[in-house]
Amino acid sequence: MVDIKITRASVLKEKPASSTLVFGKSMTDHMFIADYDEGQGWHDPRIVPYGPLQIDPAAKVLHYAEEIFEGLKAYRTADGTIQLFRPLDNIARMNKSAERLCLPQIPEELALAGITELVKLERDWVPHEEGTSLYIRPFMIGTDPALGVHSSHHVQYIVIVCPVGAYYPEGLAPVKIYVESEDVRAVKGGTGMAKTGGNYAASLRAGDRAEKQGYSQVLWLDGVHRKYIEEVGAMNVMFKVNGKILTPDLNGSVLDGITRRSCIQLLKDWGYEVEERRISYEELFQAAEDGTLEEAWGTGTAAVVSPIGELAMEGKKVTISGNQIGELTQKLYDNLTGIQWGRLADPHNWIMKL
Amino acid sequence: MVDIKITRASVLKEKPASSTLVFGKSMTDHMFIADYDEGQGWHDPRIVPYGPLQIDPAAKVLHYAEEIFEGLKAYRTADGTIQLFRPLDNIARMNKSAERLCLPQIPEELALAGITELVKLERDWVPHEEGTSLYIRPFMIGTDPALGVHSSHHVQYIVIVCPVGAYYPEGLAPVKIYVESEDVRAVKGGTGMAKTGGNYAASLRAGDRAEKQGYSQVLWLDGVHRKYIEEVGAMNVMFKVNGKILTPDLNGSVLDGITRRSCIQLLKDWGYEVEERRISYEELFQAAEDGTLEEAWGTGTAAVVSPIGELAMEGKKVTISGNQIGELTQKLYDNLTGIQWGRLADPHNWIMKL
Repeated sequence: MVDIKITRASVLKEKPASSTLVFGKSMTDHMFIADYDEGQGWHDPRIVPYGPLQIDPAAKVLHYAEEIFEGLKAYRTADGTIQLFRPLDNIARMNKSAERLCLPQIPEELALAGITELVKLERDWVPHEEGTSLYIRPFMIGTDPALGVHSSHHVQYIVIVCPVGAYYPEGLAPVKIYVESEDVRAVKGGTGMAKTGGNYAASLRAGDRAEKQGYSQVLWLDGVHRKYIEEVGAMNVMFKVNGKILTPDLNGSVLDGITRRSCIQLLKDWGYEVEERRISYEELFQAAEDGTLEEAWGTGTAAVVSPIGELAMEGKKVTISGNQIGELTQKLYDNLTGIQWGRLADPHNWIMKL
Repeated sequence: MVDIKITRASVLKEKPASSTLVFGKSMTDHMFIADYDEGQGWHDPRIVPYGPLQIDPAAKVLHYAEEIFEGLKAYRTADGTIQLFRPLDNIARMNKSAERLCLPQIPEELALAGITELVKLERDWVPHEEGTSLYIRPFMIGTDPALGVHSSHHVQYIVIVCPVGAYYPEGLAPVKIYVESEDVRAVKGGTGMAKTGGNYAASLRAGDRAEKQGYSQVLWLDGVHRKYIEEVGAMNVMFKVNGKILTPDLNGSVLDGITRRSCIQLLKDWGYEVEERRISYEELFQAAEDGTLEEAWGTGTAAVVSPIGELAMEGKKVTISGNQIGELTQKLYDNLTGIQWGRLADPHNWIMKL
C-alpha cells in the first residue's frame, strides 16, 4: 500500500469540450510526483496541483536527456467504470528503459499507484464521448544539478494526464507514409528499444519534412543497412502480405509496443500466421507490385491501429488496399477498442478496472 | 548591439576554493536567458539570478529531448585579461545542432552577447590558479507544453557558467580506455554530429560499466560495422602511428570538435601529416602489436588533451607509449593551453578578449 499525500488544487480548471481537444495539450488539475535519491530510494509519493516543475538549469535531463516515458490510457465504459489497458506492461517497459538509461528501477506498486490514484482523483476528466479517453503520461527524469556526464542520483517519477479526443473523429482514415532514407531514428546498440527522449528528438526533422510534403508520418529504416523497416512515425508497423502478417522483429532498435503485442495476440487468436522478422522496403514495394501487399497499418497507444493507404519513396509510390481501410485493419481496430472501452469480452485479462 | 536587461542577485554566493571544485557543480550567481516564440523570433534577452527554471511537466525537452548544448571556457591570463577560445565556432556548431533537432537558428550576435555579458558580470568567478577556468554552458531547450511529437514553437537559449579546477591537478596523466562493443553512442543519419542530449543519454550505461571495471572512458565504435573508431568518452580521439596522425573523419556520427579542429591545425603547422579517415580497432591493435602505435589522446574542451595509456577490449589489452604521456601529446597540450591562457602567441586568431 503506497501512502500518497494529496494536496488538492484550490481552483479547478474548466474541462474543455471533447470536440475541441488537441492531443496532449489539456492537462488536468493535478499530477503525481515521487522522488528518488541514491541511498534513500523512492520517497515522498504525492499528488499536487498541476504546475511548473522547478528544475535546476544544470539538471541532467536538460543536457544529457536522461529521461524515459510511457503512454497509456484510461477508458470510460458504458456503465461508467474507468479502466486501464495493460498498465503493468507499461511499468515493466519503463523499468527496461530505465536500465538502458541508468535510471533507477521503480517498484511496480509505486509506479502503478501513481497512475491509478491520479486517475481516480481526476475521474471526472475521463471524457464520455465515443472514442475519447484520458491519456496517461508517466515519465522519469534525472535531475542532478551537475554538468558531468554521469547518471543521476536524484530522479523524479511524474505522472500527468490529459483528456484526448477520438483519434479519428470521422472514422478510421488511411494515412500516407513517406519512406525516410536520410535520417535514422535509432540503431541496434543505441536506445531504440527504450522509450526515451533521444529517439524522438532524432525523429523530429524527418517528421517535419514528411508533413511539409503532405505525408502523415515516415517509415523508418534500420540504421545499419538502411533497408529494413523498423517503425512508422512513433508506432510499430504491420503488413498483411498474401494472407500472412509480417512485422519487424524486436531486434534491439524497435520499440516493444504494447499495442503491437496485443495485435499479435489477437491475430494469432484468429488463426493468422504472424512472422516477426526483417522486412526490407524492396520486399514491400515488390509485394505491392505483385498485388500481394493486402493491408498495412501502424499500431500505438494514441491511434490504436492506423491504416496506411499510401507508401512513397524517392521516385516510387504505391497505394495499399485501394487507399481504403483493409478488412483486417478494421477488425483489429474494432476488437482492440472494443476491449479497451469494455464493449467486448477481455479474454487475455488486459483490463484493470479502477 | 543586444540590449540585455540585468537583474542582479541580492545575495552573492561564497566562491569555492579552486582546489575543491568538482567539474560542473559550482554554478555562479547569474544566468542568461533569451526566449524564442514562433512568429515573434528571439526576445527578452536578460541576465537574472541563477535559480530553478519553471518548466511545464509536458514540455518537449522532458519527453522528446529537444535540447542542444555547447561547452567552452573563459580563461584568465597573467595580466588579468579574461578571454574566450573560438566562441564563434561554438555558436556556429550550435546552429548546426539546431538544424538537426528542429530548433530555431540563433543569431550569432545574440548567442555571443549571452556568453560575453554573463562572463563579464561574473568575472570575479573566473579563477586565478594555474589550469583553472570558467566553464561556459550555453544550451537551448524546446519548452512547448504539449505531448504531440512535433518540434517546439517556444524555445529558450540559456547560458550558465561555473568555475572549474585544473583537469589534471597533478599534471597530465594517461587514462585507461575500454573499447565498447555492446552499446552504440550514435549512428550516421542519427544525431551523432549534433551536440544533443540523446547522444549522451545513450552513452551513460557504457560509461558506468567502464568505470566499474577501472577504466576512465570508453572508446566508441561505429553503429554500422561495429568496427571503426568514432570517439572516446565525450571527446574526439587521435592516434600517432608511425609518425603520422590518424583521427576518425567527420562521417556524420562524429562530433566536429573545436579542440579536434584546433589540434589538427597545430599538427599541420608543425608539419605532421594528419589523416582523417576510418580507423578500425583491428588496425589500432595491430599497430600496437607492431610497435607503430606511438601515442593516443582524446581532445575536448574540458580536458583539452587527454593522453591514453591503455586500451582494452574483450581478451586484449595494449599499453601505449609505456603508459606515459607521449611527447607530441604533451606538446599539443602545452601549446593549446598556452594559447588559451595567453602564455603563447595566437597565430590563428582563436582568442577573443573580453
